Formats: sequence, structure tokens, C-alpha cells
Amino acid sequence: MIGGGQGAFIGAVHRHAAALDGLYELVAGAFSSNPETSKASGQILGLSADRVYGSYQELIEREKALPEAERVQVLSIVTPNHLHFAPAKLALENGFHVILDKPMTFSLAEAKELQTVAAASNARFCLTHTYTGYPMVKEARQLVASGELGAVRKAYVEYPQGWLSNFEEGSDNKQAAWRTDPARSGVAGAMGDIGTHAFNLLEYVTGLSVTQLCADINTVVPGRKLDDDGAVLLRLSGGASGVMVATQVAAGEENNVRLRVYGDKGGLEWQQVDANTLQVKWLDRPTEIRRTGTGYVSSYARHNTRTPSGHPEGYLEAFANLYRNFALSLQADLGGKSAPPEALDYPGMEEGVRGMAFIENVIASGRSDQKWTEFTV
Amino acid sequence: MIGGGQGAFIGAVHRHAAALDGLYELVAGAFSSNPETSKASGQILGLSADRVYGSYQELIEREKALPEAERVQVLSIVTPNHLHFAPAKLALENGFHVILDKPMTFSLAEAKELQTVAAASNARFCLTHTYTGYPMVKEARQLVASGELGAVRKAYVEYPQGWLSNFEEGSDNKQAAWRTDPARSGVAGAMGDIGTHAFNLLEYVTGLSVTQLCADINTVVPGRKLDDDGAVLLRLSGGASGVMVATQVAAGEENNVRLRVYGDKGGLEWQQVDANTLQVKWLDRPTEIRRTGTGYVSSYARHNTRTPSGHPEGYLEAFANLYRNFALSLQADLGGKSAPPEALDYPGMEEGVRGMAFIENVIASGRSDQKWTEFTV
Amino acid sequence: MIGGGQGAFIGAVHRHAAALDGLYELVAGAFSSNPETSKASGQILGLSADRVYGSYQELIEREKALPEAERVQVLSIVTPNHLHFAPAKLALENGFHVILDKPMTFSLAEAKELQTVAAASNARFCLTHTYTGYPMVKEARQLVASGELGAVRKAYVEYPQGWLSNFEEGSDNKQAAWRTDPARSGVAGAMGDIGTHAFNLLEYVTGLSVTQLCADINTVVPGRKLDDDGAVLLRLSGGASGVMVATQVAAGEENNVRLRVYGDKGGLEWQQVDANTLQVKWLDRPTEIRRTGTGYVSSYARHNTRTPSGHPEGYLEAFANLYRNFALSLQADLGGKSAPPEALDYPGMEEGVRGMAFIENVIASGRSDQKWTEFTV
Amino acid sequence: MIGGGQGAFIGAVHRHAAALDGLYELVAGAFSSNPETSKASGQILGLSADRVYGSYQELIEREKALPEAERVQVLSIVTPNHLHFAPAKLALENGFHVILDKPMTFSLAEAKELQTVAAASNARFCLTHTYTGYPMVKEARQLVASGELGAVRKAYVEYPQGWLSNFEEGSDNKQAAWRTDPARSGVAGAMGDIGTHAFNLLEYVTGLSVTQLCADINTVVPGRKLDDDGAVLLRLSGGASGVMVATQVAAGEENNVRLRVYGDKGGLEWQQVDANTLQVKWLDRPTEIRRTGTGYVSSYARHNTRTPSGHPEGYLEAFANLYRNFALSLQADLGGKSAPPEALDYPGMEEGVRGMAFIENVIASGRSDQKWTEFTV
Repeated sequence: MIGGGQGAFIGAVHRHAAALDGLYELVAGAFSSNPETSKASGQILGLSADRVYGSYQELIEREKALPEAERVQVLSIVTPNHLHFAPAKLALENGFHVILDKPMTFSLAEAKELQTVAAASNARFCLTHTYTGYPMVKEARQLVASGELGAVRKAYVEYPQGWLSNFEEGSDNKQAAWRTDPARSGVAGAMGDIGTHAFNLLEYVTGLSVTQLCADINTVVPGRKLDDDGAVLLRLSGGASGVMVATQVAAGEENNVRLRVYGDKGGLEWQQVDANTLQVKWLDRPTEIRRTGTGYVSSYARHNTRTPSGHPEGYLEAFANLYRNFALSLQADLGGKSAPPEALDYPGMEEGVRGMAFIENVIASGRSDQKWTEFTV
Repeated sequence: MIGGGQGAFIGAVHRHAAALDGLYELVAGAFSSNPETSKASGQILGLSADRVYGSYQELIEREKALPEAERVQVLSIVTPNHLHFAPAKLALENGFHVILDKPMTFSLAEAKELQTVAAASNARFCLTHTYTGYPMVKEARQLVASGELGAVRKAYVEYPQGWLSNFEEGSDNKQAAWRTDPARSGVAGAMGDIGTHAFNLLEYVTGLSVTQLCADINTVVPGRKLDDDGAVLLRLSGGASGVMVATQVAAGEENNVRLRVYGDKGGLEWQQVDANTLQVKWLDRPTEIRRTGTGYVSSYARHNTRTPSGHPEGYLEAFANLYRNFALSLQADLGGKSAPPEALDYPGMEEGVRGMAFIENVIASGRSDQKWTEFTV
Repeated sequence: MIGGGQGAFIGAVHRHAAALDGLYELVAGAFSSNPETSKASGQILGLSADRVYGSYQELIEREKALPEAERVQVLSIVTPNHLHFAPAKLALENGFHVILDKPMTFSLAEAKELQTVAAASNARFCLTHTYTGYPMVKEARQLVASGELGAVRKAYVEYPQGWLSNFEEGSDNKQAAWRTDPARSGVAGAMGDIGTHAFNLLEYVTGLSVTQLCADINTVVPGRKLDDDGAVLLRLSGGASGVMVATQVAAGEENNVRLRVYGDKGGLEWQQVDANTLQVKWLDRPTEIRRTGTGYVSSYARHNTRTPSGHPEGYLEAFANLYRNFALSLQADLGGKSAPPEALDYPGMEEGVRGMAFIENVIASGRSDQKWTEFTV
Repeated sequence: MIGGGQGAFIGAVHRHAAALDGLYELVAGAFSSNPETSKASGQILGLSADRVYGSYQELIEREKALPEAERVQVLSIVTPNHLHFAPAKLALENGFHVILDKPMTFSLAEAKELQTVAAASNARFCLTHTYTGYPMVKEARQLVASGELGAVRKAYVEYPQGWLSNFEEGSDNKQAAWRTDPARSGVAGAMGDIGTHAFNLLEYVTGLSVTQLCADINTVVPGRKLDDDGAVLLRLSGGASGVMVATQVAAGEENNVRLRVYGDKGGLEWQQVDANTLQVKWLDRPTEIRRTGTGYVSSYARHNTRTPSGHPEGYLEAFANLYRNFALSLQADLGGKSAPPEALDYPGMEEGVRGMAFIENVIASGRSDQKWTEFTV
């Protein structure tokens, strides 16, 4: 693991996600750019002191020098955005498989370069767009793909949070500090932190691509340096349209990602607060409540479930599904077999590059007087 | 009543709403432009044959000729949009109080002219924006006005329907036919039919005015002559922003108007499907569930409630609240007293003119390449 | 109307319910046993002074003396329980149709006598078990009757309220006072006030009869003279079993009647707080959400609905459905036709007698050390 | 781990729960009474072959022979009920800490004997009543304990499942087979499998004890050998009363454990399907929605949470909380410190004995003609 030392949020999430299925063992880390902090974190995590490194470069170099059977196989990179590219690139160049937190990089240019590096490597790559790991999100994608809803006409995605309603970066809030800092977060705040998730979710489930957008991007809290709120009109491939809302100043909201997609025959609705339910709506018959863990759901939903219906699976399980599928893909590679399509269904380079393109396009549109901006990659 | 003959939807709703509290008696009508249909409708409704007229002109002329104690006092006009202006104008000019279905007129120009007519008349006027009649919508407005949520930063309103997902106007659907016909509905379809409700609800609860908008207006169903879908970015007075979504092609959706408003201290959420609940969300304490009929709600909510908490009040009750408040205002006038502010809180001319301005502005924005359109009246 | 003067709750509900569809006109009343109060109430309600009477005897005598075309046709009796029997009997004996609030009488003996009186009369009779007026409760009954859920195995009904959590009868609460007074309410408090509703709802939807019961009946609030809480194990005809819970001391609960019924193939769930939804659950396919006002529901549900789906209908509409069906039945009688089965589906004598039997049986069981008490009528 | 070989349900759950926080490492197992199956299971789980045993006796004997630093510290016993007592006893007698699946034993007599054994041992013991691991269940218990709801008057607990609606034990369903077999499950079916959970949840949250009960116990599915349905009237210490419902034949239900508790000032409601929400209801102010991961919840809720609010935690996290608290308690022991009360709050011997007493009392009551059965241990 690179990053994720004491006080980090997402590093712990990655560790839970990796641990849940017993398919990973944490054996090495460079948990902080401060070697002391890194060492202390490694000790708390029970790592052998000689596998805790002072930098990602040292980690990669020294692990590579170990016999293949002993060295780390997968590197989880859970640093702030500005520290994604360099370690990911070095890891891929040295043949380590990489699991990288989103958004992929600091800029679209970095993302494209990383894509090139990855294309030349044999290593696998996963970008942790958590929400696509939920079984009912898998079900939603399969439902759209099946054509049962008809051609997609409209998609709404929203991601409301309230935790940045005050000037949190002015107090001792590490999470707020880096996310609102252009030097660490990049050109976008909310659009990068949660907008990319919403964008990815919409493209994943609809199977469509955003082709044009028109954004209203705001910095609501005085003194803040990056956007904390946005709303975007979308045009999608195939003639559909959509709306995306992502905000971090919706006071009182937690983290309720919500997606609705409508075709000419029916629609679907999913929201994280009721993550194990997929509502399927029809023009002229009752709404269906599809549920995680039941016998009637698609193989993709079933594959990403651990318990029978009625035993709620949550955020960590969704996250763990990414880790699990990545591991199953690697195991298949090692065994010389091809993994089943359900295991290969995790976000990768393409999603990462499009996410970075979204960030740059949406911020550009927000600054533009022109109504529609082409979505360029 | 003018309009609302057999086969009409909203006419029957008005009659239920008027009847519920026993404050109105239906005594006269011109229910159709076809005198035979009008007569037949009047008979079914149990009216005396001599009070059923062949046209609104005849109704107004002949009712005016009756002794004051006998003549109709209030005229409900429930015709399609293109037949709002003329009867409303004539009624107001002749001193009849008017309850008019929304949107107010066929065009903004008509709306302004009607406003001038009304200003010169002693007659009262009510526009039936039903949703503002719900007790918990009243509560929402009072909550925002109280300042408890802080300054409003963000407002989201949505009005998804699915009933026009197919080309209904091609079949024998009277409701679809006139709503999609530019000659009867006006310049807008969905934006006029449901968009105006959403717009009114947002302005009513926030107490703010839309100042600029940027609209994506679509005609999704092939062959349709007016918009059936739209999404609008909004800028509001006081620096807030918002998003409005109104569509009639969200297959499987019924009529779930939903509003969310966020200030810097908290937020609120109301949706028609759970109309007797107002969610009040706070930055750092539990969400509150405020309910119709409880002892702790505002005088405005209480005034618009008929039963103790736990006895759901619905759409007809919300509609009836407009009728009831209008009647209470008239009774106060007749008694030489002023009605309490709770009774005077019903939509009127100002809301009607702004609604028509919304329609024209949003359609113009939809056709424009310019990002932001000033909201002009 | 008999009873329902100023300060009464249910009288106003009956008036709204009667008014909603324009099928009734309130023309006469004996609103209170105090002639002054009755007169004052009549004046407020806009009745002609000569049709406001000082007692129900006077009302019935003098109305009967009027020409048939002028006299009142239907008498709504909305007095406390101890004043149900005498006016209902006198009304039926004199050929007036009767709508009576529940529970039917003060005792089972009275109920049986009233049944005998009614059998000898041509007058129609309706008992206002409101909850069976909801469209989705109609749908539930039809669904069970269709056999789609298989043979009923289990039924749960609950009726939790919290408004009697304190000793309200010690303060100036008229509603609490008579409901907790054995001289006015009868042998039961909560079991009569809300338990009968729950019992009726269960028998109505399942189509089964309670055959045995085992009750835990409590008076929770110190000083109270009647039960305010109860839970009852039920055995039903056909081998099914059930549980009924009714309480008025569930602090914080409003009035959320809820019913669940399970057959061997599926189950259903309805609750008043979401009255326009019927959940239909299946062993091996998704739960269905059936909704009021849709095209796919049964003729019984459709018949009892006024607005398209998505326009919530509430308690007053459910109540009004009883009044409307009663009126449609009378209109059919008057026209020499038979009303459609949907209109004839309202609670009557049989339900009233069984409700009173429930009260006496459940209180007896509560006092007994014997586990199972036969349900005797 | 003892039990939990291939095809078992709860064994995998225990492994996920143990793995999630990285506090346990699976090093040894006797996964099946069949040595071949045990070996195969161990291999799949990646265990060293010499730590996979053919029986629990062998496991305990040989692990005990290992140096203390190498031997297994905690034994998870996840066998069917009839195989709980013997391995648990042997483990405790040999100083191994034990985590045991519920219900504790095959009979109350065994449970008491195990309690005696444990009292004489230094080993810690945890019984996996999962539902008390949910953060909002912790919050519920703390809320009741705080007295804010007033004295508890009423408690309702329900546990509806539908998966045994058919004669599943007649087909190839291992889970159904042993749960409906008196030789493996004990004297009870549903009452042992899910009734004990409901009973435990009720006593845990209310802090009260069941003192008397009156049970209706049914075997609904023809041919089944144990109960699959029950409803129980409860009397609780302190004068409160309650109702418990547990069934496995509610066709279409998943696993929605639900608890409601009412005091004289307010009430609470929790249900597993919305596990991160605790509804707190008040007599005269709005219902509060308390949520997992927020800043305002009790230290007990916070201690049992891994992610910020809005990231749903589910069944495996609740299960993992038991494992985590057990590990934290052991770590504190090893460090010579006392664990914080939040870590010590996991179910143990006392809960196990009471659970077995519940099973025997409830089945006895079900067979009795006497109304109330004393709850004896």
C-alpha cells in the first residue's frame, strides 16, 4: 500500500476491502511521505519492519529485488490526487498490478500518459469507483443492457453531500484540507471528488457516453479555492440526455448517490441509502423491487454478493467487490485461465481517462459562456 | 364553473375540492363550448337547467342579471389554456371572483393584461397551483422564512411523469391531445403543464425569485409538437442556485413532485408521494420528520389540515385548501374583516404572471445557444 | 346527522366524507343532546333553523312527517358509542337509511337486536370502518380472493397510536374523556376504538373469520378505567393464525394501521402511512408495488379512486368511498336497478355484530386464565 | 475454526467477519466431521495442511501441544446446534477463547453446564447474536438506558422470513435440512434459529428480562418436524409487556428483523432493512432520524462504525463488530489493561443461557393450555 497512513480515511477503507474475502495479505507499505509516520503506521498494521518503506520509490525498488514468490503482487495507491500518477506509473512500469483510488490522476494529460504506460505493461489496473461494485448497480447495468427498458432516453444522477457546508479547511480537517487545495486535488474540488463517481456511475449503468455538457459550477463557501457545488446538463450518445448534480454544501445530506435511468419502456432507480434495492418501473405494470441476494437477479449481481437476501451488504462490501474481482482476475491469469466476465467487470484505465476528461470538461464548461461544450478526451 | 364537462380531468378535481368543506355550492355552469354537452354535463351534476349555459359569455351575462343574492359569486375556470384569458377577463370585469386553473393564460402578454384587468377590479383571484396547498409545503415555506436553515444556497425541484412516454396524442387520449397541441396549450408542453408547478413550488418555498436560467428542452417522443422533457439550471435572487427537472417521458413515474432546499445551516425535503412528511435536515443533529396534523407545526400548516396526525391528507385536500382559503378570504371581505394571513396565502396574479414568464423564458432559453437567459417578465 | 356538534372530531370527518362527491346534502341535524348546542352547530353549518332539532327523537319524528321528497333520506349517527343503538334503531324502524360510526353499539346484545331491527326494515345500513374504503385495501382483498397468494397461512394486523400515553382524560380532552369512560365507551377502550378497526380489516382482507383468540389486555396509564393496550393471538378459519396488536400508549406513533397477510405463494403488506401502495411479495420473484390509480389494479380499487396515479388519496377519500358507495347503492335501489358489486362493498350489519363480538370476546379473554377463548357471537 | 466447511453458510460469514478488521488470522481448522472434507476445505482456505484436523478433539489436543506463541488463540465454532456443546466445553477447558454461533447449545441443561465450565476457565466467550452488533442497535440500547424515553412500557420484536414456505428439507437444501431436524437443531426450529435472535435483541435493547410468556407455536408446512412459526405474548420485568413474532413461512419476506420499544415519553424503531437508521419518536415533537456514522451518536454506536455517515454498513460489519470487540478485549487482557466498556459489550454466557431458556420455555408454552408460563432458567 502506498499512502493511507494514520488519519487517512480511504486507506483504511481499502484495507477493509482487501481483507474481507481473505484474498489479500498486507505485507508491505509506504504509508506516508514522512518515513517516521510510515514506519509507525506499518507497525500499527502489524507489518514486518523491513517491508515498511520511506517512499514509494524505495518500496518498488526493494520489493522488485525480492524473489518473485515473496514480493508484493498488487500495489494499492491511496494518496491524494497529486500523488497518484508517479507511483502508479512506476509500479506499472515495474510490473506490479495497481489498484488506484479515484480520480485517476491530477490532470487528463497524466491520465493519458498512464494509459500509455499501462498498455505497454502486463500488469492489471483497477480504479476504485466503488459504486459500480454494488450488486444492484451491476443489476441495473445488466437490465439496461438487456434492452428490457427500451432505448435509454433520460438519465439523472445526483451526489449530494453536506459535509463541506462550512469552511472546514480552515479548521483541523485533513480530509477537507487536501480536497479543497488546488495543489493537491487538481483543477476541481467537488467535481473531482464526487462528480467523477456520479459521472462514472451514469456511464457504467447506461452504457452510453457523455458527448456534450453544460455546467453550472459554483464555489459556495466563501474563501474556498475550488468548486464545492455543480449541476450539469448532459447529452449522451444515442440521443439521450441527462442531468448530473453533485454538491458538498447540501447541509444535512450524507452521501446518498442516486441514479435514475429511463428508457421508452421503463425505468430504474437506485440509491446508496437503500443499496440492496433496485426499483424497476414500468409503463403499465407494477414497479418491481429487485433485491440483493435473491435467486432471480443476474449473474453479475449474484457474483458480487456474499450473503442471502435480507442480510444487507454495504459500502465496504461494494468496495471489496472491486478488490475481489481484481484478485479473481489475477488468479485466473496466474492459472492460465480467463476469468469469467463477472470478475472482469471492474473499472480500469478507460474509466479513469474518461473521469479525468470529465473533470477538465466540466470545469471548462463552468467557466464558459457557451452553452454546450463538446466532451473531449 | 366554466369548462369541466364530461371527460375532463381537472374539472372534477375542482368540484371535489370545492365540495369538501361545504363552503361552495355548484349552481351554474358553462361546461363546454358545445351547448348540448354543457347541458348534459349540468344535468349529471344536478344543476337546475336554467343555470346551465351554452357559453361563458352567456353565463356571465345572465348571472350578472340575477339579483345579487342569487347569482353565482365565484367562477371556476377549468378550460384548456387557450380558453383561460377571455372568460377570466370577462368575469373579473364583471365583478365575479375567479378561480383559474394553471398556467394562467396562453401567453405572457395575456397574463399581463389579465393582471391589469384584475388590478382594476374588486374581485379576488386564485390560480390553482395545487402543490402550495399541502400543509407540509406551507410548513416548508415557513421554515425557510424563519431563517432556521440559514441563507438559501441551493434548491432542487423535480417533477417526473411517465404518462406521455408514448405518442398518446395519436390515440383517443383527450388529456394528451390538448396538452401537446400548440394551438391549445401554448408555446410549451411539459414546461407549461408541470414545469410551471415546479417553478411555482420552488419560488414559493424558497421565497426567492429566479433571475437567470439555462434550459435543455427536448421533444423526446417522435411526432410530438411540443416539449415533453426539460432540465433547467437556475440562478436565484440572493445568490443561490438551483436545478429544475420536469419530464413526461420518465417511463414508470407517476407524479412525484419533489423539492429540496438547502441553507447554510440545514435543508428540507418534501415529495408528494409522502405528502404529509417534511424532512428537515441539519448539519450536525438528527434529521427531523415533521408531520401534518401534529401540534408542533406552524400555524400555516395547521390551518390547512382537517384531521389529526396519522390520517393522511392528499391531493384533493391540498386542492381544497386553495378553495377553502379563497372562500375564507371572501367571507372575511363580506364581513368587513380582514382574513388571517394563513387564509390569504393562496396563489394569485403575481404567481400567474411569473408562471407565464417562466414558460416563455424557458422555451426561449431552450432554443438559444447562449448559456444564461435573463428571466424577464 | 345525529351528533357531531362543535368540538366533535368524527362528525366533521363524516361531513367532509359526505360532501366530497356531491352526492349528499346536509339538510337536518340533532347535533347535541343539548338543544342550544345543537342549534348553534346547525347555524354554523348553514342549516335552516327549522331542520335543527333538540334530540334524535324529535328529528326522526318531524322529518318523517315531511313529504317524502323533502325529508332527510340518510341519517349519519356520529355520537359516542353508548348513543348508537337507540337512534339507529329508531331510524331503521322509521325507514331512514343509516350510516353509523363504529363500533356499532355499546354491547353485543344491542348489536344483535339492531341486526334484527335492520332485517325487518327496508332501509340500508353502513358502518364506517374507514380503512376498508382505501383503494389498496380493496385491492388486497381482491388479491387474496383471487387465490394468487395461495391459501392464507398467517395474518398480522397492528394499530399503534400514542395519543393516550398520558392521562389525557384528566385534562380538557373531550376525545379522550368519552373513549376512556366505561359509561360511554362500553366494556372496552382501545379494543373498541381501534381494535375493532384492526379486527375488521383483517377479516375483510383475508376473507377469513377469527375462531379463537388469546388476549393480553392492559391498562397501562395509571388511573385509566379502560384498556389502552392489547395484543391478541388469533386462530382463523381454514387453519391460519394471526396476531393483532392495538395500543394507544405507543408514544410517538400516530395512527399507522398496518396489515400483512401471507399465503403459501406470496404475501401482501399495506399500511396507512403509505396508503396508496400495496406491496405484493412473492416467494421467488421481485416484490411488486401496486399503486392507486394505475391501469392494472382490480375494478374494486379503480371504482374507489378519483384521481390518476400519483395524486395521493387519503383518509377522507377512504371515508368518502363508504359514503359514495352507500349513495350509489341507494341510487340503484331508487332506480330499480342493482348496484355493481363494487358499490355494494361497504361494511354493514354483519361487520358490526362481529366487531361487537370481538370486543366482548377479547376483553373476556384478557381477563381469563384460559389460553384460548372461542370466538362466539 | 470448527465446522464451516464447504457448503456451509454461517462459516463463511464468520470468516468474513473475522477478516474485515485484520485482527484475526485463520491458521487452523477442523472444518468437518469428515476428515477428507475438512482437509479439502482447509486447502481452499489456504491453510497449512498440518493445521487442518480431522476432528475438534484432534485440533484442540494438537494445538495445545504447540508453543503458546504459535498455537491458535481463539476458536470459532460454527457447527449445527447439536455440535456446539462438546467442542466449546473442550476448548474452554483447555484455555482456548471461544466464539460460538447461536443458539448456544442443544439444550438448556448443556447451556448451564457450559456456563459452569466457562466460569472455571480464564478463557473469554462470545455468542454471535449478530444483531446486537449493529451501531444503531447499540444506540437504541443506550437511548433506553439513558432514560430519555421514560420507563419502558411496550416492546415489539419481529423476525419474519419466508424461505421455509415450502418443504425445503425435502430437496437438496442443507441449510433447511439441519434446521428442521430435531436431532441436530434441538427442541425448536424457527424459535431456535431466529426466535432466539429476536428474544436477545429485545432484552438487549430494553435492558429488561422476560418474566412470563404465552406462545402460539405452529408447524405450518406439512411434514415438517419442528416449528416454523410462532407468536409470543411477553411480560417483562418492571411491568412492561411485549410481543414477539418469528416465522419462516411469511412468503416473500427476507430477513427483516424489526424492533420497537415505547416508554412513557417516546419510542424507538429499528429494522435491519434500514440498519443504519434509528427512528426516535416523541410524544410531542418531530421524530428524529439518527444515523450511523454521525457525530451526535453515543460512544457505543461510534465505536462500532468504520466509515463516515452515508456509507452504509451492513450485516457483515455488524458481525465483524462482535469479532472486533472480542479481539479488543483479548488484546486488553494481554496488555494487562481493561478494555473500554464499548469493547466489552458483546453477547456472552448469560445471553446464551437465557436464549436456551427461551427456547425451552417458549416451546413448553406452545404446548400448554395454560395461558402464562413463567420464564424459568
